[in-house]
Amino acid sequence: MPDVEGLKRSLAGIRIEDNPAIVKQKSRDFFWYSPVLKRQLEHVTGDLVVSPTSEDEVVRVLAEAYAHEVPVTVRGAGTGNYGQAMPLSGGLILSLAELRGVGAIGNGTVTADAGAIMSEIDQVTIADSRQELRLHPSTYRSATIGGFIAGGSGGVGSIRWGGLRDLGNIVSARVVTLESTPRVLDLTGDDLAKVAHAYGTNGVITRVEVPLAPAYDWVDVLLGFDRFMDAARFANALGAEDGILLKELGVIAAPVPHDYFLRHQRYVRRDQSMVVIMVARQALSALMTLVGRDSRASVLFRSDRAGEDERRGLPPAYELAWNHTTLRGLRVDPSITYLQTLYPYPHQLERLEKVTAILGDEVPGHLEFVRFDGNVTCFGLPIVRYTTEERLEEIIRIHEDNGCPVFNPHRYTLEEGGMKQSDPVQLAFKREADPKGLLNPGKMIAWEEPDYDFGADKVYLFRGLQALEA
Amino acid sequence: MPDVEGLKRSLAGIRIEDNPAIVKQKSRDFFWYSPVLKRQLEHVTGDLVVSPTSEDEVVRVLAEAYAHEVPVTVRGAGTGNYGQAMPLSGGLILSLAELRGVGAIGNGTVTADAGAIMSEIDQVTIADSRQELRLHPSTYRSATIGGFIAGGSGGVGSIRWGGLRDLGNIVSARVVTLESTPRVLDLTGDDLAKVAHAYGTNGVITRVEVPLAPAYDWVDVLLGFDRFMDAARFANALGAEDGILLKELGVIAAPVPHDYFLRHQRYVRRDQSMVVIMVARQALSALMTLVGRDSRASVLFRSDRAGEDERRGLPPAYELAWNHTTLRGLRVDPSITYLQTLYPYPHQLERLEKVTAILGDEVPGHLEFVRFDGNVTCFGLPIVRYTTEERLEEIIRIHEDNGCPVFNPHRYTLEEGGMKQSDPVQLAFKREADPKGLLNPGKMIAWEEPDYDFGADKVYLFRGLQALEA
Repeated sequence: MPDVEGLKRSLAGIRIEDNPAIVKQKSRDFFWYSPVLKRQLEHVTGDLVVSPTSEDEVVRVLAEAYAHEVPVTVRGAGTGNYGQAMPLSGGLILSLAELRGVGAIGNGTVTADAGAIMSEIDQVTIADSRQELRLHPSTYRSATIGGFIAGGSGGVGSIRWGGLRDLGNIVSARVVTLESTPRVLDLTGDDLAKVAHAYGTNGVITRVEVPLAPAYDWVDVLLGFDRFMDAARFANALGAEDGILLKELGVIAAPVPHDYFLRHQRYVRRDQSMVVIMVARQALSALMTLVGRDSRASVLFRSDRAGEDERRGLPPAYELAWNHTTLRGLRVDPSITYLQTLYPYPHQLERLEKVTAILGDEVPGHLEFVRFDGNVTCFGLPIVRYTTEERLEEIIRIHEDNGCPVFNPHRYTLEEGGMKQSDPVQLAFKREADPKGLLNPGKMIAWEEPDYDFGADKVYLFRGLQALEA
Repeated sequence: MPDVEGLKRSLAGIRIEDNPAIVKQKSRDFFWYSPVLKRQLEHVTGDLVVSPTSEDEVVRVLAEAYAHEVPVTVRGAGTGNYGQAMPLSGGLILSLAELRGVGAIGNGTVTADAGAIMSEIDQVTIADSRQELRLHPSTYRSATIGGFIAGGSGGVGSIRWGGLRDLGNIVSARVVTLESTPRVLDLTGDDLAKVAHAYGTNGVITRVEVPLAPAYDWVDVLLGFDRFMDAARFANALGAEDGILLKELGVIAAPVPHDYFLRHQRYVRRDQSMVVIMVARQALSALMTLVGRDSRASVLFRSDRAGEDERRGLPPAYELAWNHTTLRGLRVDPSITYLQTLYPYPHQLERLEKVTAILGDEVPGHLEFVRFDGNVTCFGLPIVRYTTEERLEEIIRIHEDNGCPVFNPHRYTLEEGGMKQSDPVQLAFKREADPKGLLNPGKMIAWEEPDYDFGADKVYLFRGLQALEA
């Protein structure tokens, strides 16, 4: 049985928060993008938030959690959309926000503590040597590097570098286990797959080394097209331009840009779909050459042409893209939700066209172009005008039936939100690193229910959550 | 009629060389890689070499050449393999080697005079801001940036950035026309296609702006495989790793590495094929992870593990690759030659395997992996154990019949060495910029013989060269 009070007493000298209102607030991530997760997780909360300020304190916290058998859910900034940081069994929220040091900066790498905010890492590395992180989520200005690696998969920069799952996009990770005497492990190479995108279910990442890219002067360019598929075709062609250095390439179907990008509303007609681009200044002329060849493209906005006041009044392009597209939509219309899909190369355009024809304005398209296994293709984060869970399931099925895999953001488990199969590497590491199963309970089906049948077309419901709901 | 003597007199104050032995030496490029071009061009020479030291002098030279109707062949370092710089009608060799200034360095760009040697540009940009050229030929230590853009297509760096034909890999070019009053034009965007890879047939490039990439600590890694196709498959998979930053990725079939890479001979068995890699130090661990997964790969050499003396005794990896592979072969066995082919995505491995099975050790394989239209595939620069021109033609036909286009390095014309069709953009610009047809005569069939039939399966022979041979 968890002994929360005993744990609390044992952590004297470490910052603890146990005011239930604050704990509940610090127990939440962005699960509420999903009406399904909202229903399931709305009442989830931890018992206390612990904020260590050093790796030694992390080790101490984990040793005591083991001794007192209290569940531990690790948290960065809580910007995940899959309920990654939701403490399904209550217990201890291990906030790493105070572990925010930026360490050694090399020619092409940086070491940072897990709780370092990504934009703040960049401030340091840019000042040091005009370098910046390769990849970041649209929540760049609040998300932590550790949270991104534990719970994210890619984002801005993926058009150049692929995703976090790709070898080379993480150099090393330092991980503390949850054992009687926690071990501190430095993982590299294939071992990184044990903890990357494992939601903190099998170890606590305290520090990472990641590669850096050059920090160029990125120009935001927004293009308008009268037809979504023309915008998609343009972006698809632009993505294949090996010499044009981009950091972001997204496409958002009308009327989303006009209706939801309120501060950009004056630049875009309601019937225009938008291509969102971040291009290195030295490639701007090449990009404009390509734009000039396409009579259907019109330039809506260029940050290099905007006045300083104008630019200051606008969010950066990356805050129109990835999960921020949906976030802006939710602010205007809280009834919407979204999906995450992949349009596999080389069939991305035809499958997109098919799905778009079937679903129309019920599911306005949103594409994010990326390098994926060496090719350029696109993920989808389409807006869904939500009605019922049944219809949402139907919409997912329509995507899958048309060859577009769905990474379901309406599921809180690693397996259901990801590849729909268990990850034996992550499971094996959990057996080593978390023998009592205290880390982020309920997120890894393979651990909770080893015989679970992923083919059975049902939704997994964590026992702990059943108890909580009951 | 050309008035060479009159021209010479008109150029007082500009550096001129007219000693026939020196002029002949400065009239030659690396055409002798090809036994066909060797037979055709061995006796080709200009009448004088002029070496302007400023753009003003270039303008003066071109105005006088126009007035005296003397052909002008522009020359950088003369490292081309297609006879790009061979003055088929004699006349003036315009050496730009003295135009070697490196100008403004920006965040991601540099401006350089056409005659600047590429490794010397990098010395300046690395010292300034740890930046370097995106692309360079294996003749990096002697080739000029202007010559590369006028006569080259890609090389080291193409695995990351594609080729010179790709938008964004040249920012701008300054070009002087050969007219009564030469114009100085700054070309950007689509206009760059007028002069890039035009062999100086329609203008004299005097200065370029090109993008820069970050100058990382590149580690040379040489891998050995018992079977060429296993090496090719490994490289093909490595090229698709979006997170592993490479600058070079080549594959060379046994026994070429052992027989021709004399200073590397002790590292490689005669029956081993070699993968040649330049990898950024921060990606080395990721690369080694991938190597560790392939039981057929053995590490022959790593520059980061070699002692300083050992490294000093070896050429850099890029001087084993691209045209240097053949160059090293020619030093050992002057009877060989080579081809240039493309293995089109996504069929590169199967077509390679087919051609390799047919030709065996008569044509030992040499692949250079590149990004091409957004995908990763490979060019071929296979060694050819040369016997006759007829057999060479057969070998070319075997490649073409098996879906591997050949960029024939045994032809001195733009069309036959390239896409086997005329380039209307370059032709139209020649009409404007070189109305008398004095620039590098004989290299653009579209100009010399507008009705030439490229489908007729015959070899073009320039009239001027016929005269010269007669």
